Amino acid sequence: MGNKLWGGRFSGSTDPVMEILNASITIDQRLAEVDIQGSMAYAKALEKAGILSKTELEKILSGLEKISEEWSTGVFVLKQSDEDIHTANERRLKELIGDIAGKLHTGRSRNDQVVTDLKLFMKNSLSVISTHLLQLIKTLVERAAISVLVGVCRLSHITCVSFFPGSGALAGNPLEIDRELLRSELDFASTSLNSMDAISERDFVVEFLSVATLLMIHLSKLAEDLIIYSTSEFGFLTLSDAYSTGSSLMPQKKNPDSLELIRSKAGRVFGRLAAILMVLKGLPSTYNKDLQEDKEAVFDVVDTLNAVLQVATGVISTLQINKENMEKALSPEMLSTDLALYLVRKGMPFRQAHTVSGKAVHLAESKGTTINNLSLEDLKSISPLFGSDVSQVFNVVNSVEQYTAMGGTAKSSVTAQIEQLRELLKKLKEQA
Amino acid sequence: MGNKLWGGRFSGSTDPVMEILNASITIDQRLAEVDIQGSMAYAKALEKAGILSKTELEKILSGLEKISEEWSTGVFVLKQSDEDIHTANERRLKELIGDIAGKLHTGRSRNDQVVTDLKLFMKNSLSVISTHLLQLIKTLVERAAISVLVGVCRLSHITCVSFFPGSGALAGNPLEIDRELLRSELDFASTSLNSMDAISERDFVVEFLSVATLLMIHLSKLAEDLIIYSTSEFGFLTLSDAYSTGSSLMPQKKNPDSLELIRSKAGRVFGRLAAILMVLKGLPSTYNKDLQEDKEAVFDVVDTLNAVLQVATGVISTLQINKENMEKALSPEMLSTDLALYLVRKGMPFRQAHTVSGKAVHLAESKGTTINNLSLEDLKSISPLFGSDVSQVFNVVNSVEQYTAMGGTAKSSVTAQIEQLRELLKKLKEQA
Amino acid sequence: MGNKLWGGRFSGSTDPVMEILNASITIDQRLAEVDIQGSMAYAKALEKAGILSKTELEKILSGLEKISEEWSTGVFVLKQSDEDIHTANERRLKELIGDIAGKLHTGRSRNDQVVTDLKLFMKNSLSVISTHLLQLIKTLVERAAISVLVGVCRLSHITCVSFFPGSGALAGNPLEIDRELLRSELDFASTSLNSMDAISERDFVVEFLSVATLLMIHLSKLAEDLIIYSTSEFGFLTLSDAYSTGSSLMPQKKNPDSLELIRSKAGRVFGRLAAILMVLKGLPSTYNKDLQEDKEAVFDVVDTLNAVLQVATGVISTLQINKENMEKALSPEMLSTDLALYLVRKGMPFRQAHTVSGKAVHLAESKGTTINNLSLEDLKSISPLFGSDVSQVFNVVNSVEQYTAMGGTAKSSVTAQIEQLRELLKKLKEQA
Amino acid sequence: MGNKLWGGRFSGSTDPVMEILNASITIDQRLAEVDIQGSMAYAKALEKAGILSKTELEKILSGLEKISEEWSTGVFVLKQSDEDIHTANERRLKELIGDIAGKLHTGRSRNDQVVTDLKLFMKNSLSVISTHLLQLIKTLVERAAISVLVGVCRLSHITCVSFFPGSGALAGNPLEIDRELLRSELDFASTSLNSMDAISERDFVVEFLSVATLLMIHLSKLAEDLIIYSTSEFGFLTLSDAYSTGSSLMPQKKNPDSLELIRSKAGRVFGRLAAILMVLKGLPSTYNKDLQEDKEAVFDVVDTLNAVLQVATGVISTLQINKENMEKALSPEMLSTDLALYLVRKGMPFRQAHTVSGKAVHLAESKGTTINNLSLEDLKSISPLFGSDVSQVFNVVNSVEQYTAMGGTAKSSVTAQIEQLRELLKKLKEQA
Repeated sequence: MGNKLWGGRFSGSTDPVMEILNASITIDQRLAEVDIQGSMAYAKALEKAGILSKTELEKILSGLEKISEEWSTGVFVLKQSDEDIHTANERRLKELIGDIAGKLHTGRSRNDQVVTDLKLFMKNSLSVISTHLLQLIKTLVERAAISVLVGVCRLSHITCVSFFPGSGALAGNPLEIDRELLRSELDFASTSLNSMDAISERDFVVEFLSVATLLMIHLSKLAEDLIIYSTSEFGFLTLSDAYSTGSSLMPQKKNPDSLELIRSKAGRVFGRLAAILMVLKGLPSTYNKDLQEDKEAVFDVVDTLNAVLQVATGVISTLQINKENMEKALSPEMLSTDLALYLVRKGMPFRQAHTVSGKAVHLAESKGTTINNLSLEDLKSISPLFGSDVSQVFNVVNSVEQYTAMGGTAKSSVTAQIEQLRELLKKLKEQA
Repeated sequence: MGNKLWGGRFSGSTDPVMEILNASITIDQRLAEVDIQGSMAYAKALEKAGILSKTELEKILSGLEKISEEWSTGVFVLKQSDEDIHTANERRLKELIGDIAGKLHTGRSRNDQVVTDLKLFMKNSLSVISTHLLQLIKTLVERAAISVLVGVCRLSHITCVSFFPGSGALAGNPLEIDRELLRSELDFASTSLNSMDAISERDFVVEFLSVATLLMIHLSKLAEDLIIYSTSEFGFLTLSDAYSTGSSLMPQKKNPDSLELIRSKAGRVFGRLAAILMVLKGLPSTYNKDLQEDKEAVFDVVDTLNAVLQVATGVISTLQINKENMEKALSPEMLSTDLALYLVRKGMPFRQAHTVSGKAVHLAESKGTTINNLSLEDLKSISPLFGSDVSQVFNVVNSVEQYTAMGGTAKSSVTAQIEQLRELLKKLKEQA
Repeated sequence: MGNKLWGGRFSGSTDPVMEILNASITIDQRLAEVDIQGSMAYAKALEKAGILSKTELEKILSGLEKISEEWSTGVFVLKQSDEDIHTANERRLKELIGDIAGKLHTGRSRNDQVVTDLKLFMKNSLSVISTHLLQLIKTLVERAAISVLVGVCRLSHITCVSFFPGSGALAGNPLEIDRELLRSELDFASTSLNSMDAISERDFVVEFLSVATLLMIHLSKLAEDLIIYSTSEFGFLTLSDAYSTGSSLMPQKKNPDSLELIRSKAGRVFGRLAAILMVLKGLPSTYNKDLQEDKEAVFDVVDTLNAVLQVATGVISTLQINKENMEKALSPEMLSTDLALYLVRKGMPFRQAHTVSGKAVHLAESKGTTINNLSLEDLKSISPLFGSDVSQVFNVVNSVEQYTAMGGTAKSSVTAQIEQLRELLKKLKEQA
Repeated sequence: MGNKLWGGRFSGSTDPVMEILNASITIDQRLAEVDIQGSMAYAKALEKAGILSKTELEKILSGLEKISEEWSTGVFVLKQSDEDIHTANERRLKELIGDIAGKLHTGRSRNDQVVTDLKLFMKNSLSVISTHLLQLIKTLVERAAISVLVGVCRLSHITCVSFFPGSGALAGNPLEIDRELLRSELDFASTSLNSMDAISERDFVVEFLSVATLLMIHLSKLAEDLIIYSTSEFGFLTLSDAYSTGSSLMPQKKNPDSLELIRSKAGRVFGRLAAILMVLKGLPSTYNKDLQEDKEAVFDVVDTLNAVLQVATGVISTLQINKENMEKALSPEMLSTDLALYLVRKGMPFRQAHTVSGKAVHLAESKGTTINNLSLEDLKSISPLFGSDVSQVFNVVNSVEQYTAMGGTAKSSVTAQIEQLRELLKKLKEQA
């Protein structure tokens, strides 16, 4: 038990499988840098509280800087006895500067460290994710400008950049630790209200995973659309080779693997959310080891979002639009709403007009043709309100262009939406 | 197909089991009132767009008022052919005012109606939920004032009242519908940017269910704490009879059923979130019937939150605290951190002090006693730094009172926290 | 507290909202009949144990029969004080036969009753679900016979009928209750081993919900296939009007609502599984009120499966296959694997043959044609192994027919699969 | 694209981030050995089908053996171009034996390989998991023998060892591949019926994750029980030091970390199940890259179960039972059911007896005592049926011992249960 931070009270030794289940070092070494950052801030607070002398503070700070360097150059060597990153860094500090290292932990629990470190890590990660998300939104906006007709479809997938409020750090300390100093050193927005809560709540993790899940759900829907549109039957889009793969069996196959991977990651990220929620359910207050699951979930989702957002940006910025096939898909049948509105403008209540137009569609089908090829006599046989001006209805461009209301499909409307999104984008960039 | 809003184009009739699977009327009649509210606003917009004359508008409005009255007095009679609440209300309107009723639906899809209605319903529901949540928070704050020692524990369960941004309504309309008029009539914060998005996205549902799940997770943790504290072994708390039940087999049993029910509802609400997320995953854009699942989920979670919040408030405001048992639980062993800090103050690095204090605990255990009953000689045998002033350490009240930092357990600190929460509460009430 | 089965020990009354949260009667009255069935068996066991006299047994049995009749004719009247179905039936029994009714509950807890009733209900429900599932499988098999080419696709969705092992009832009884008599009266396969376990484990619920979720996942995949195949761009299938709906706005639209509803129910059923698993997680042993969530989940999933299976059967048995469009989709590019195998038969290693065939596809694309239209010279320019016999490769029917291995696409192979499935079906029917 | 198995048809190169998202090699190298095993069997089938000569077969087999050796000795070097384990092994085979290696893949798709490999891996893993599970069950049975009173509690957590039916391999092959030879070489129970299904269904993964989740839910409940029983307030159990950890801040603390970790893993495993189910939902048939998520999920759950089962076995086999505290907890109030049954034996209907006994409990509470200390007069004041023989009721051992029915708490009954479990265990071992 000699190396353990908590061994004093124990006489038996730990079961090796238990060590495996307990050890988080393989996961949490990603916190190495932020752990050092947090310890530096805490050392300063200890000096202010009179626990450390100026000289001791300097020794500790330069020792921590040395360790940070070791991590960044890849020379830090983990030992078997390092159960987590906090133990590892403190163990190394002792090797470098001796027993004074033992003062750094005064009045600070590992649970404090874990939460502070994870929040620092997330603060950094979220800024990277935000950059990738803005790039994706920008790409979506740009591409919409190129092809007005697919614009509405694509813009609908834009989700807002989530704002993550970093907060809290150490609480419930019997020493005269200056929490405000800690907060400002670590650049958090606020300190937590309550000591027990500060170390056991994981709302910030759940909120991040919830927003990430919703974002991935949107991307899974976008991916599904694009997969269907890129089948040879639809033929609306052709994916760039850079985002496709082939089959080891069938030489002709070109698979939209990038999109299928994006779609599948919605499941992965949701799984992480579901796991943490179940871990938290019914957990008594104060820290429980159960919370150890949080870090791996956060790391995994951060990595997933970073990869997915970049690939989605790549896919969309390089895909080729097959305008001809898209226009073919705008069949005259899609104009039957306009046919109903034509009758509404002639004074017929919409409900009745809807029925009449439906009958026209049915008549055309039974004649093996489309409604724009029905004769005026055919139409008049359904309703006497039809006149020769009905021919103006059967024009796809006219149809699309009449939806000029905000949010509609008219060129002017789509351009306005893009403009609005560009404004939004600018604001998001300024916030980031 | 005669009664269907969309029957014109169809020749075959619908399979009866399909009708059952499709029909949402048993669920969505809770939207009856907001559906009428939405239709009234839309009728006004139609009049402004020149589709309805002033007289027609008046007829429609008074017809809708009559229907609203029928719902509120319980005399509205549903017919078998009413597949949803929108059809039911429009069918009734036609019975009351004739064919003019058919004009109300001009250029409006049922999907528009569904989304608008659901948002209106949620706006109303969230205001009720907020009231219950504020009441619970108030109770938590009040009870903390009574007993300082349990304060920290309870306050930690307070969650922030979520702010729900109502938004959007009808989009992508070829008529000159004034969307701003619609928005202001229905008291929404903003209109949606994009037409396809407006009817197919369910972010507002997912966000509500996510916040509700997190809230229920917190309440499940609070419930678990209270269940354990109310066992006869802990005996910290006694639940009021009003929130307990007995056993039909064992006459002596008093079960904390209220708390167990609260705990279980975390699973229920999470299940609703999980269901909707899975429904949405990989769904192509534009409206899909899949989205029909959303309403039942929202209704169920609204009902669950309303009941749970009121019962939680009741349980906490009536539970009896057994101060004596709680004080007994503050065993001298809990003072071992203070013993370590005693040594820190004498100049020993914390790591070493922690080990020494751990040894003291171990020595006491092996002597079948507690650390405050160790003799000075015993303590000196572990470290020469112990002196006769060590006796001051073994005082629970002193111990609790030294945590004066913001968020700590000292009476002054808890009082300050309560004060801060009261301020927060005041602000929340003003916002509500 | 007078009416409560457990009121003796209580002095305060119950909070009305707590009553709402606690009451399960609106849900569990679906257990009315099986509750009576269970009570009849228990009464017989009580008589055998000497707790009831022959006369008392007869009175109780005829009272219970009367109640059963009241339920089946719809004349049973619930009272406000009936907190659950067990209380309701016992209350009514007392009204009918007087104080002797009070003997029925001797040594039996409500938790015993709940579990026994729910298992009886599930035993009945599973037999109905099985019938619907067999009907769906039969339809899938039949339809495959009609169209060989879609056969492989459809058959892949067949899932095995799950076998549900009914088990257990009352345990841990201090009276000389004959559990074997109880088991055989209620037609269970076995009795449970352990008393605490018998009332608190819900493995049978979790297993049912797991199998139901997997079944629904399969159906959601089948639905997705059929939705895509029925788009006008694919045009492989036309859905019957009986399983389609229209749009209230767009007269021409025909929506595959039946399939979209089926797809969405996968989310719903999974949500029920997720809810119960979260309820169970970390629950201390012995009965907890948390388990009350189980019944609603089971009822809802039973209803969902019954409707979904019937609608799926209907959709598939009535859909129209557009053979022409399906054949068009078998483009010559799909033959490139055969082109590679042609080279393999000429001695080229497959890896190399795959590359050569890929190059042929690429060459054809760059010439704006398909591989079957490449000249022999074109092919020889890629590999000298190509000869004039290559023309035999470009034949879709030949291609399909060469997959004669078990499970392949050849007509003979598909016929064999159907035969095998018919055999399986026969066995399943015999078991049911 | 040179190194890719499917590069022939492609001209552009792949985006590096896409490579990261796509590459599974870091995950699936755990399949290295079973991939070789599968390839050996396939090579034999190719030889039988006449695609490989005897000499070629021998070269391939010895090449594969060499690769297997390289993996087991840790000298296999992965190259950047190896996108998955199948590519890596085939690339290495080519380096070792030249172009003949290219024949191994004839008529076999990677998807076939993936499914076959994963099933082989699971077959091996499940046998290891079974061993650990049997060990845990054995420990639970053994410990029950030691302490009769806790027996019932512990036995209730035993779950049955799940039987996993390995099945299927390669299907839909145009060559004369002998699937039966493949099946028997790889020791699978049966071959799959249908070719498309064989590569796209993941029922075996879902079933494994479902059973694993249910097992972990049981273990989370067991862990919760033991955590509560080991608090100082309950004091029923003391955990061995080998399965506890301390606090870096509070020297006296001994945390049941092993149990908390076990409890949390229920969330983790459920998260994996939830992820895969969401990935599968609505997925069109045939293989999709989405399925790539399956392997990581299986590996993680296999590792988690292996660690958790061993630690649970360790915790339970080493925990110390504090008999004295447990007996203290059997308060006289727990005898009130017996008091009611005493009255039943005197002829009072149970309902009435229950109420009388409840009143006795209430009277005792109001006198600040327990029911066994009520005087005969006190009891007679509640019901005249009480006589002096009531004193025999107030004996905990008598009470426990009267539950002699199968599954009850009497020593004889618990011993019988243990015997039955030992029999079951023996059978399970024979099956394993």
